[in-house]
Amino acid sequence: MSTTGAQAPDEFGLIAELFAPLSAGCPGALNLTDDAAFLAAEPGFDTVATMDAMVAGVHFLPDDPPELIARKLVRVNLSDLAAKGAVPRHLMLAAAFPKGTGMDWLRAFAEGLRQDVEEFGVSLIGGDTVATPGPLTLSLTALGRVEAGRGLRRSGAVPGDHVYVSGSIGDGALGLLAVQGRLAGLPPDAVATLAGRYRLPQPRIVLGPALVGLARASMDVSDGLVQDLGHICRVSGVSAVIEAERVPLSDAARAAVAMDQSLLALVLTGGDDYELLFTVPAGAARGIESLARRTGVALTRIGRIEAATQAAGVSVVDADGVVVPLPRGGWRHF
Amino acid sequence: MSTTGAQAPDEFGLIAELFAPLSAGCPGALNLTDDAAFLAAEPGFDTVATMDAMVAGVHFLPDDPPELIARKLVRVNLSDLAAKGAVPRHLMLAAAFPKGTGMDWLRAFAEGLRQDVEEFGVSLIGGDTVATPGPLTLSLTALGRVEAGRGLRRSGAVPGDHVYVSGSIGDGALGLLAVQGRLAGLPPDAVATLAGRYRLPQPRIVLGPALVGLARASMDVSDGLVQDLGHICRVSGVSAVIEAERVPLSDAARAAVAMDQSLLALVLTGGDDYELLFTVPAGAARGIESLARRTGVALTRIGRIEAATQAAGVSVVDADGVVVPLPRGGWRHF
Repeated sequence: MSTTGAQAPDEFGLIAELFAPLSAGCPGALNLTDDAAFLAAEPGFDTVATMDAMVAGVHFLPDDPPELIARKLVRVNLSDLAAKGAVPRHLMLAAAFPKGTGMDWLRAFAEGLRQDVEEFGVSLIGGDTVATPGPLTLSLTALGRVEAGRGLRRSGAVPGDHVYVSGSIGDGALGLLAVQGRLAGLPPDAVATLAGRYRLPQPRIVLGPALVGLARASMDVSDGLVQDLGHICRVSGVSAVIEAERVPLSDAARAAVAMDQSLLALVLTGGDDYELLFTVPAGAARGIESLARRTGVALTRIGRIEAATQAAGVSVVDADGVVVPLPRGGWRHF
Repeated sequence: MSTTGAQAPDEFGLIAELFAPLSAGCPGALNLTDDAAFLAAEPGFDTVATMDAMVAGVHFLPDDPPELIARKLVRVNLSDLAAKGAVPRHLMLAAAFPKGTGMDWLRAFAEGLRQDVEEFGVSLIGGDTVATPGPLTLSLTALGRVEAGRGLRRSGAVPGDHVYVSGSIGDGALGLLAVQGRLAGLPPDAVATLAGRYRLPQPRIVLGPALVGLARASMDVSDGLVQDLGHICRVSGVSAVIEAERVPLSDAARAAVAMDQSLLALVLTGGDDYELLFTVPAGAARGIESLARRTGVALTRIGRIEAATQAAGVSVVDADGVVVPLPRGGWRHF
């Protein structure tokens, strides 16, 4: 791990004080004193590698609490690993800190990392910290492992499959409105719940690995439910139908939609849910029920896979089977 | 690989057109159509993982040719792997592109990646592209492999070891001055040579793996020769002496220093060399000579390791053994 151009009191001290302790679980990280980390091969497993970037003002608000920025960065990446059925192991962080970022801010950011490194049993094994004249820009590489050849992919959905999601959908996108003070009509506790879901998503790291051997196609919902199911359809060569009234909403989201029906489109296309979206053979309902009980995560059937009608076609229908019109494209980051 | 908030005509088209072809060498990258890549375990090898970030205006000039920005990013990371004795395999790219970045620029950037993916036999296996209101900000994760347990580290230097560097030192830092038009007194071809070395470093990917079993401690010179030898000393618990007149300079660098003696300090502390700095037992001179012949890379003994006198002490001495004073700290990015 290295630091160049940073403004902090002592660049190497920054790494030693704030980040090196987060590598404790991985001897091959060499306490972040070297150029690289060494990871022993694990025969019988595939390494699963993902990387996500976040920019202040694009993916989070510049004045969000630094702990939460750090934790969201970690969780967004762990959500990708979970969707592939992988158990998370190692993180690498590249951070471009705005000039003048103070030690208090950095300590809080590192504390957020520490909390999630502990909560999810992972290690920080390397990275880079640099100074930037621009906004805080973060990228994280997350490495996990899954039994060789058994990782879950977006491809593999088959006509007749049932489509499931974990947890509830729409809280992330509504949570952004909540954070921006744009859900003023809602009770304060609903606003707080939604804001919390936006700021601190819960990656489904227990559920994901348990879907190995059960799900045919899987990804996490980050761009938006409809768009992400479209991704599965595109690479699987199928289409899909979502039954709108089956999509699971939290009480807070339900209250928001009751207040303003137009928010339903945001729920379906807004993204930032970090729930798992997967398909299973129609006969797997029992296995899914049992998995939901075992993991304590709600798993809801929201639709079905059909033969390809048009490229990546995802239709949303209401209780009468009538197609619900949705804005094209999907959610744009603010 | 995913794209959020980008301004390009079609976010997914961007990945499909520009980046997916770079994954061709790695089936587990799934043509960059999934959330993550799957890499099979390679028994008998350690994975070596490194990550470096670069920001426009800090680590390169905003109007540098996009091909060269891409290639420098790749090379800086491959240099870290080489220094660990690793053979490079896989890359992951996180790119925050300024809003309004045009397709011509992006195509040229991808073309630079393509050239180096081909030249170094690696694959792009994933990453993330986002839009930023700030400067172009890039981070790259590079994964390589080395025989299990045999990777080179910064630690391991022993008093009595000889200190070597590959190639020539100082061209990168002088090259930045050249690019900035601050070496006006030099012949144009020397200016061009130095600028080229700054813009397109040559990672020592053949030499690095050949040092396994020969070098005791190794890293690449990125912060500056003196500072980087200091890093080796710190983690090895030793000190070191560099004999200034032994430090290998290119003809162009020699001409620059002849023109302005004060540039010698920049050569020794300026960084951006991406040469390998390593120590070997005093008896290894024959092996080093043979290696230099085999690889065609100049290997020059520049000093020796001594018992620790002070924390991470590196002294530079002239031909008479008199200590050469150097500015504290080292090079700051412009």
